Amino acid sequence: MYRPELLYEGKAKKIFRTEDPERVRVEYKDDATAYNGGKKGFITGKGELNNRISAFFFDYLGKRGIRHHFLSLLSSTEQLVKRVTILPVEVVVRNRAAGSMAKRLGLEEGLSFPRPVVEFYYKDDRLGDPLINEDHIALLELATRKQVMDMRETALKVNQQLVGLMAEKGVDLVDFKLEFGVDGRGDLLVADEISPDTCRFWDRVTGKKLDKDRFRRDLGEVEDAYREIWNRLGEDVLV
Amino acid sequence: MYRPELLYEGKAKKIFRTEDPERVRVEYKDDATAYNGGKKGFITGKGELNNRISAFFFDYLGKRGIRHHFLSLLSSTEQLVKRVTILPVEVVVRNRAAGSMAKRLGLEEGLSFPRPVVEFYYKDDRLGDPLINEDHIALLELATRKQVMDMRETALKVNQQLVGLMAEKGVDLVDFKLEFGVDGRGDLLVADEISPDTCRFWDRVTGKKLDKDRFRRDLGEVEDAYREIWNRLGEDVLV
Repeated sequence: MYRPELLYEGKAKKIFRTEDPERVRVEYKDDATAYNGGKKGFITGKGELNNRISAFFFDYLGKRGIRHHFLSLLSSTEQLVKRVTILPVEVVVRNRAAGSMAKRLGLEEGLSFPRPVVEFYYKDDRLGDPLINEDHIALLELATRKQVMDMRETALKVNQQLVGLMAEKGVDLVDFKLEFGVDGRGDLLVADEISPDTCRFWDRVTGKKLDKDRFRRDLGEVEDAYREIWNRLGEDVLV
Repeated sequence: MYRPELLYEGKAKKIFRTEDPERVRVEYKDDATAYNGGKKGFITGKGELNNRISAFFFDYLGKRGIRHHFLSLLSSTEQLVKRVTILPVEVVVRNRAAGSMAKRLGLEEGLSFPRPVVEFYYKDDRLGDPLINEDHIALLELATRKQVMDMRETALKVNQQLVGLMAEKGVDLVDFKLEFGVDGRGDLLVADEISPDTCRFWDRVTGKKLDKDRFRRDLGEVEDAYREIWNRLGEDVLV
């Protein structure tokens, strides 16, 4: 009998082995954390919404030439993805000042940038995911120089696609975080998730935050915000 | 009658106008600060030692093709330099893990790097001089892309020269900070100072710290350490 084996449990997702060694099953959870685990809670329905939203974004990007780990939806909270080794680098693209970056550089939240800003963070909870530069990545051997160039280029392509898509839905893509993985053939793929947990989305008319900042900053209507993003994307999709 | 006019007073130096609009007089002070002004004190003799040590390093680097602001010594605590506009970017080169970087990346102090690491910091006391990347420099218009490339290249050349020089004196150059200025012709020059205030120097045999960390960490023998650096450099110089 096949027994699901948990490979990894993160803050928002569980990863299970499948019968195919090159594929794993991802289960999206309702658990929410912020400030490096300093704040914890639940967002009812988040697992299902982020599963669907991530699947949608990966599929959308894949059709536009961006390589990613997503294969198919398995259930309302589960998806099948390629098994990859996640690089310990978080790639952030920012179109406007917000969050830690606004504070760090003394910029007013919402300030619009003439060009997107790319940042790399060292994925290490113990250290609080510090900002790093390309010399640090080389020193710590987190990724090769080529992988860094590829991550940067891909992140900017993802930004261009998602800014355009979300604008059509009346949403500003303020910033987002990507994680990348390397598959068995050594190919670099966009992995992890793309959702209101990992993106900042602001309504273009009202400025209302439609993302995890509602949880981080206790703004209320957290589930509604995630559902709003799904509803806007879902207008012209059937999953 | 000529009256000296103070143009700027920093933590460790005063800058005075001279009769030549393209030249300013720098007075090195005994004042010492650390942790972004959180710790203050005096190091007797520091003004004189840093004035002489900086003059020596600038002269040494100039003879090896590195452009800098230093012109001549005026007195034991004063030097004449070209007037420049300082770029609000601190350039740090590191050969070993130490200080904020060791803590930030979870590295053991003293870890030797296979290649030097270059970092840029946004020179802003209010923000605590945060680490930044090249996209941040472009966003904040702190320097042009070309200036960033030049600063990086020059900082690595300075590192190569000073590592070699200090090794001959039995000293490890652990890391150092440079500031750059732009003169009236638009040329980029190494400016500010190069001294035990801005470099980490460790005795190669005993590991003894011969720099401002003795002040920062209350290790005692602060003035002796600065004097030791000057004595070792001074062995074969007459200023």
